[in-house]
Amino acid sequence: MDKKRRTIAIDMDGVIADTVSHFIKWYERDYGLRVGLDAFEGKPEAEGLPGNTVRKYVVTPGFFRSVPVMEGAKEAVLKLSKNFDVYIVSAAMEFPQSLIEKYEWLQEHFPFISWKNIILCGDKSIIGTDYMIDDHVRNLDTFKGTTLMFTAGHNVGVIHHRRVNNWKEIIEFLKEEV
Amino acid sequence: MDKKRRTIAIDMDGVIADTVSHFIKWYERDYGLRVGLDAFEGKPEAEGLPGNTVRKYVVTPGFFRSVPVMEGAKEAVLKLSKNFDVYIVSAAMEFPQSLIEKYEWLQEHFPFISWKNIILCGDKSIIGTDYMIDDHVRNLDTFKGTTLMFTAGHNVGVIHHRRVNNWKEIIEFLKEEV
Repeated sequence: MDKKRRTIAIDMDGVIADTVSHFIKWYERDYGLRVGLDAFEGKPEAEGLPGNTVRKYVVTPGFFRSVPVMEGAKEAVLKLSKNFDVYIVSAAMEFPQSLIEKYEWLQEHFPFISWKNIILCGDKSIIGTDYMIDDHVRNLDTFKGTTLMFTAGHNVGVIHHRRVNNWKEIIEFLKEEV
Repeated sequence: MDKKRRTIAIDMDGVIADTVSHFIKWYERDYGLRVGLDAFEGKPEAEGLPGNTVRKYVVTPGFFRSVPVMEGAKEAVLKLSKNFDVYIVSAAMEFPQSLIEKYEWLQEHFPFISWKNIILCGDKSIIGTDYMIDDHVRNLDTFKGTTLMFTAGHNVGVIHHRRVNNWKEIIEFLKEEV
């Protein structure tokens, strides 16, 4: 039991925050059209909605503050935090207005995550945890530890990282690793 | 020249931002008394000013936004960024109001640092760069790479990290490492 606890970097958007649902909800609210999840498949996330809408939403104050929690994420992260040192690592720096919103969102939905375990960054290449759970290949590709790729429309064709489709699968995989 | 560029994590407060000068300046403005730098020596930084004043200032909106740049830091960081991948890593998460202020401060004083190279975090133990320049022993002690301890009142007695007293000494040391 003296073994050093292993560390996990967990992404926010697309992993514990259901950003795509929120894009779809806002688009329906603003344009009266409901797009399907398939609209986000096989292309960069920014192209999931017509025009420049995704880009517009991610710089809109309030967007990140009001994103719903990904299904199963809260219970799963709480469970993981018993056996691992869990860090929430989000590439928030591109959208500075999101910094405080992401902090407040975590306080609301993941109050058991200490401020000490939150990292808001740009590039994730210098994150030195044992595991990384992320949906973006660009973050996983430069990571030196074990990668878990959370399924998202933009990564459907990717086969060089271990794919996980939901939080249940993450728990299944990591319980063997404790 | 194909060698992978090495990475440096550079702290903000007490390293590129002259926080102590700012504490002294605000204290004189508010209480009419000028304390010397020696008031910060050999004790935790939070005890450098009478009462709870340091703690009060670090949660005051505008404090971090208006801190002066540490002498020589701007030119030195610019020079280092030619040969290293420079990351600014600040333990800002304890004071969430500082997140946007620190981002804006960097935009103003270090505009050559991309948002991709900024990390606002809590605990720095998962930072996996080759070098870390920091004044706090708690950050340097858990770091796996080469440490450079920037002299501050609170670290005067520490001898288990390589001490650097100013930015000139950092450049001297790192030019041998390129």
